[in-house]
Amino acid sequence: MQATFGTIGLVGKGDDSRTAPLVSTLLDALHQRSLGVIIEQGIGDCEHPSGCTVAPLAELAGTADLIVVIGGDGTLLATARATAAYGTPILGINLGRLGFLVDVSPDRAVAELNEVLDGAYEVEPRAMLQTTLLRDGSPIYQGLALNDAVLHVQSVVRIIEFDTFIDGLDVGRLRADGLIIATPTGSTAYALSAGGPILTPELEAMLVVPVCPHSLNHRPLVVSGRAVIEIKLSSASRSPAQVALDGQENLDFAPGDVLRVERRAEPLTLVHPRHHHFLRMLRSKLRWGEHP
Amino acid sequence: MQATFGTIGLVGKGDDSRTAPLVSTLLDALHQRSLGVIIEQGIGDCEHPSGCTVAPLAELAGTADLIVVIGGDGTLLATARATAAYGTPILGINLGRLGFLVDVSPDRAVAELNEVLDGAYEVEPRAMLQTTLLRDGSPIYQGLALNDAVLHVQSVVRIIEFDTFIDGLDVGRLRADGLIIATPTGSTAYALSAGGPILTPELEAMLVVPVCPHSLNHRPLVVSGRAVIEIKLSSASRSPAQVALDGQENLDFAPGDVLRVERRAEPLTLVHPRHHHFLRMLRSKLRWGEHP
Amino acid sequence: MQATFGTIGLVGKGDDSRTAPLVSTLLDALHQRSLGVIIEQGIGDCEHPSGCTVAPLAELAGTADLIVVIGGDGTLLATARATAAYGTPILGINLGRLGFLVDVSPDRAVAELNEVLDGAYEVEPRAMLQTTLLRDGSPIYQGLALNDAVLHVQSVVRIIEFDTFIDGLDVGRLRADGLIIATPTGSTAYALSAGGPILTPELEAMLVVPVCPHSLNHRPLVVSGRAVIEIKLSSASRSPAQVALDGQENLDFAPGDVLRVERRAEPLTLVHPRHHHFLRMLRSKLRWGEHP
Amino acid sequence: MQATFGTIGLVGKGDDSRTAPLVSTLLDALHQRSLGVIIEQGIGDCEHPSGCTVAPLAELAGTADLIVVIGGDGTLLATARATAAYGTPILGINLGRLGFLVDVSPDRAVAELNEVLDGAYEVEPRAMLQTTLLRDGSPIYQGLALNDAVLHVQSVVRIIEFDTFIDGLDVGRLRADGLIIATPTGSTAYALSAGGPILTPELEAMLVVPVCPHSLNHRPLVVSGRAVIEIKLSSASRSPAQVALDGQENLDFAPGDVLRVERRAEPLTLVHPRHHHFLRMLRSKLRWGEHP
Repeated sequence: MQATFGTIGLVGKGDDSRTAPLVSTLLDALHQRSLGVIIEQGIGDCEHPSGCTVAPLAELAGTADLIVVIGGDGTLLATARATAAYGTPILGINLGRLGFLVDVSPDRAVAELNEVLDGAYEVEPRAMLQTTLLRDGSPIYQGLALNDAVLHVQSVVRIIEFDTFIDGLDVGRLRADGLIIATPTGSTAYALSAGGPILTPELEAMLVVPVCPHSLNHRPLVVSGRAVIEIKLSSASRSPAQVALDGQENLDFAPGDVLRVERRAEPLTLVHPRHHHFLRMLRSKLRWGEHP
Repeated sequence: MQATFGTIGLVGKGDDSRTAPLVSTLLDALHQRSLGVIIEQGIGDCEHPSGCTVAPLAELAGTADLIVVIGGDGTLLATARATAAYGTPILGINLGRLGFLVDVSPDRAVAELNEVLDGAYEVEPRAMLQTTLLRDGSPIYQGLALNDAVLHVQSVVRIIEFDTFIDGLDVGRLRADGLIIATPTGSTAYALSAGGPILTPELEAMLVVPVCPHSLNHRPLVVSGRAVIEIKLSSASRSPAQVALDGQENLDFAPGDVLRVERRAEPLTLVHPRHHHFLRMLRSKLRWGEHP
Repeated sequence: MQATFGTIGLVGKGDDSRTAPLVSTLLDALHQRSLGVIIEQGIGDCEHPSGCTVAPLAELAGTADLIVVIGGDGTLLATARATAAYGTPILGINLGRLGFLVDVSPDRAVAELNEVLDGAYEVEPRAMLQTTLLRDGSPIYQGLALNDAVLHVQSVVRIIEFDTFIDGLDVGRLRADGLIIATPTGSTAYALSAGGPILTPELEAMLVVPVCPHSLNHRPLVVSGRAVIEIKLSSASRSPAQVALDGQENLDFAPGDVLRVERRAEPLTLVHPRHHHFLRMLRSKLRWGEHP
Repeated sequence: MQATFGTIGLVGKGDDSRTAPLVSTLLDALHQRSLGVIIEQGIGDCEHPSGCTVAPLAELAGTADLIVVIGGDGTLLATARATAAYGTPILGINLGRLGFLVDVSPDRAVAELNEVLDGAYEVEPRAMLQTTLLRDGSPIYQGLALNDAVLHVQSVVRIIEFDTFIDGLDVGRLRADGLIIATPTGSTAYALSAGGPILTPELEAMLVVPVCPHSLNHRPLVVSGRAVIEIKLSSASRSPAQVALDGQENLDFAPGDVLRVERRAEPLTLVHPRHHHFLRMLRSKLRWGEHP
């Protein structure tokens, strides 16, 4: 039996009509267990007789012992970045298609949440990326990513060139649409579309995948999780590029700018119902073993 | 011996310092042959005693029997689109790296041009694309491409979805960074970066290559050169996309818009020195047969 | 209304228990139409009161106006090669999984066969390959393929090197597990597993796909259907290789041997029920448009 | 300054005419340092006045403090497997093309060997694979690999099907030409040809790459170095397969057989001259940063 959770935070997509009813159902279940509940501002009301608290996400993350995210992988990604400073474990309940990260289906949400609250759960650390954008040598932005940091052209009629340094070693100038630096978690996201391999979550590794490289001899590269990766946009690039974190935050990236990516010291703690297994989920989602 | 050329048009990159000296050298050679010469406005002067004419590109294309393009593949692509209405044959002299399209090296420019003018040349028809952008069913833009027409996201933090129709048949909705429709000529350009095959230039075919598709079961598709391909941006796409022709012209593409692509009836006529062969050039550029 | 068929040949997999009942059902349907029927030796009896003929495949192919193949894609491939000399059209009824070539499902076999016999059908020419194996310059084997001719190592602990010539032009020595030369029909077979593109069936083209090349700068190549492709196993190869036709016939291939592949002058004639469309079938089999 | 080496073993390709002269040169250099020398039987004579010992490889490995391998990557692979039980560090001097593993060029052999013997070297542990072939549940063969263990069809006209288990979890049946299980070292060998990513050598990971899979939704997979991988040839496979270790040892693999692969507890110790860096070597060999 593992440590149990005293206060539960409910977080979700406010603009999805399926959120509020599920929040209400979970609220009932949590009150039956006499647990404290905090609801993210904008996703539901605390009309329950036993009461609850409504709070902005950061305040919620600072108080709750477990964050339950209701939504898709995108909701969990945004929550993970926004609450990383508090280190609160996250459990995902998915709306719609089964996600890679949110692995509890809505119709089993109460049952599986109860099992988790009974102590029957797995915790899985997931590495995050710490990214810094440097201009003229000075950091002008810092941000986190659970999936990936991506350098990309802004307009397809523009070519960018950039140099990549791994632990200070120059691994060559590349012309490409972009470059993806992904965690193992991110290996099933954009990196997979760009031809990258799949990494199991526990690997202490980062994945570097060029997007549409102009030369044919590049391949996805898997490096140590302790590596420091820097990408410098060549001053020969005639146009600005963009940097995206988890496909959600978007930054301008000018010729001469440097993007530094390293693994964040503290991983995200994902909470799963028992019997969750990454490879089983992967097999199911990718239909391995089926022959059409 | 083939038909010879009476009036030669010289076209090039005005902002490249290597253009003017080469124009001057070619002018000498052409005057020695007592041929008429038209120089594109902005790339050189007609200070030669025998005189010559300076004209804008369209006027030049309407008068010349042969256009000599001085520059890179990009210069030839732009010239091909701009002069297609006149059907004037084009010979490419490259500055810098050997291109796929501009295949005469600058130091051999006079010698090879003289051979061509002696009638020792090959002509190679290269298919072009006729593209039409339709909004609410009405054409709002028409343009040509020698390499490719590309649908692409504008921002990597946005997802686009689109439906592709080939001769009216719906081949399925795709989520991807984009879609490339290329001529055989364009198969060695952006389509190659995106994982497409190489098509020899004479094939009556078009190449359809998804860019970073979100599902794993898509592959590049080669269809008949007589096919009509339409791409419709899904109204579920939450952001506009862009359409690029030859990576040079850029159009906004809104949800609901349709891009129609078909082969242009008249191909571009490329002129090559004798002994040019696409596969030999390919082997050389891709270093086939070398084993590092 | 198209030409109708007077005598029908039934061909199939003798070792599949589902063949005989389907032969019997089809026999009834054909007798009701008072058509002549020939059954391939080994796949069923002619116990019908109206009688029928049992004959070896070659004799059947020489007499029938339409061959109905009962089986999978493999059965149709073997039948196509064995009967090509007669040019008899082929219709495929599949047992088991829907095939790329056999496109009538068993439960609709009678209905769709009747429609075809009523004249409601499409004919589709499918290019075949004519292959010649030359040793010391002399042909020692000739064979046909509907999908592909494949050069391959015999043992994975052995490396082979070979030179490829397209219309006599040497396109470079390659070290690889093998090389696939496929028709458009074969583009959805082994060539697809090896990373090749999909070609629509009517393209006058051949597809050349290296299998696990040792250098990174090779890509699938699509060449004219009129090309003559020759592969010569380097005498530096320390072990024999194998050549396979349609993954069914297997030949030894020694250092110095040459495999010559060109398009056969006469295509196979596939007969489809109305409303068959290659791209629709492709979309269905590859699940294009589904998003797991 | 690191530990130095007292007795040096020289190992090489006996059938390469460049071996004996290099052995003789190295022998001189080693005698000048008054070091003990053991020469592998069959690669050279001990005609030096200071004498030396000739011994079979196993005896050499048991006595030497450093093995110097003269040859290509293949020679080093064979030596690593044959001497792994003794744990003797290995330095590679390459004949011919620069290898991924043998990184001292012949003309710099004496200089770099002297530097190494002065203590100026890097040691790099490289994981090896321990493989066991089980038939009817009992081990019938055990072997090591430094690059990879490969399951492969014997004949391209035969299809194999197999099930893969990772830490006991069934990840699905696959039809393919084969499956590669590689160390990070092996990621630049056969796995790269089959489309796998490159892994830096220090990663505690194994790479699983399908070879020409028949379904489109498979991707290379990178799993923990502590995983136990088992491949079971399906009894539905109608033909035997082969298992190869480092592309050198070849075993028959029958339907029902199981190949178990795990990381060997003790890694190989590679010795490099100072300033060796995997990524720099990779960049050089793959020509990253060059734009043809």
